Amino acid sequence: MTNEKYMKEALKQAKKAYQIGEVPIGCVIVYQDKIIGRGYNKRNTKKTTLAHAELIAIEKASKYMGDWRLEDCIMYVTLEPCQMCSGAIVQARIKKVVVGTMNPKAGCAGSILNLLQMQEFNHQVELVTGVMEEECTEVLQGFFRDLRIRNKKEKADKMSQKGNCEGLTTEP
Amino acid sequence: MTNEKYMKEALKQAKKAYQIGEVPIGCVIVYQDKIIGRGYNKRNTKKTTLAHAELIAIEKASKYMGDWRLEDCIMYVTLEPCQMCSGAIVQARIKKVVVGTMNPKAGCAGSILNLLQMQEFNHQVELVTGVMEEECTEVLQGFFRDLRIRNKKEKADKMSQKGNCEGLTTEP
Repeated sequence: MTNEKYMKEALKQAKKAYQIGEVPIGCVIVYQDKIIGRGYNKRNTKKTTLAHAELIAIEKASKYMGDWRLEDCIMYVTLEPCQMCSGAIVQARIKKVVVGTMNPKAGCAGSILNLLQMQEFNHQVELVTGVMEEECTEVLQGFFRDLRIRNKKEKADKMSQKGNCEGLTTEP
Repeated sequence: MTNEKYMKEALKQAKKAYQIGEVPIGCVIVYQDKIIGRGYNKRNTKKTTLAHAELIAIEKASKYMGDWRLEDCIMYVTLEPCQMCSGAIVQARIKKVVVGTMNPKAGCAGSILNLLQMQEFNHQVELVTGVMEEECTEVLQGFFRDLRIRNKKEKADKMSQKGNCEGLTTEP
């Protein structure tokens, strides 16, 4: 129940990314049953790789806690974190991560690697996956479907413009 | 020669961290023979795990480039990057990383893992290690030596204060 409650909040964040044309990934960080950090992907908007949803949420949660250690915090994130975000989760000593859908091509919480639970590091993170998986997958699929349609349309428009121009130059 | 030139700049950054009582790690990012991002560790000062030297330098370099992609950039860093920073380097598609000294207990550019060169990711980073290794090791060793002395002194002061107080309470 709690997992779904906060994953819905992470999904709300993902939809904010969708609205500004960013890959829809959202994240919230919870401490003592209160959201203390929210974030959504803004990589293209902010023009920095550090604008992943998880890092934005970690920055805000750290500000709230007044500490770089987020030891009693739980992160809810719609997509399995990449290597950078998984690394940040371990570095911030987040207690637990709840993931919506996995990212088989790039995820580092079990897909390519499991950076969250490596015994070689000085902190291991509890991990729950597959919470509201269908909704978290759908928001991503919807985004990429729209993107394909848009790209196809743009290409068709360009081709048609090109055709018109060529028509103009070949006509007397 | 160039490696030494820029590692000296990274060391200057590390020394800035030293001066504010932070673990002395420094970093610069170079594009077309120009430093476009500098950073030094401020984790305790800024109270966020995102204030590692490398992430600060990436943020600044991205701002300079106006792009999250740092494809033709070279990073010089005094200590082998952790899992978060190695992940950020791959995500930012930095071309090459030059490392001063390795971090056998936590480094992720060859020690625990080599996240920079995993074939499973969509980007691999050229890697040079051991540039000005002695100087980069010495600045860290000096810091921890000072810290031990300071901690020992504080402990001794506390013990002596405690002794005085106990003396006061047992006297009539």
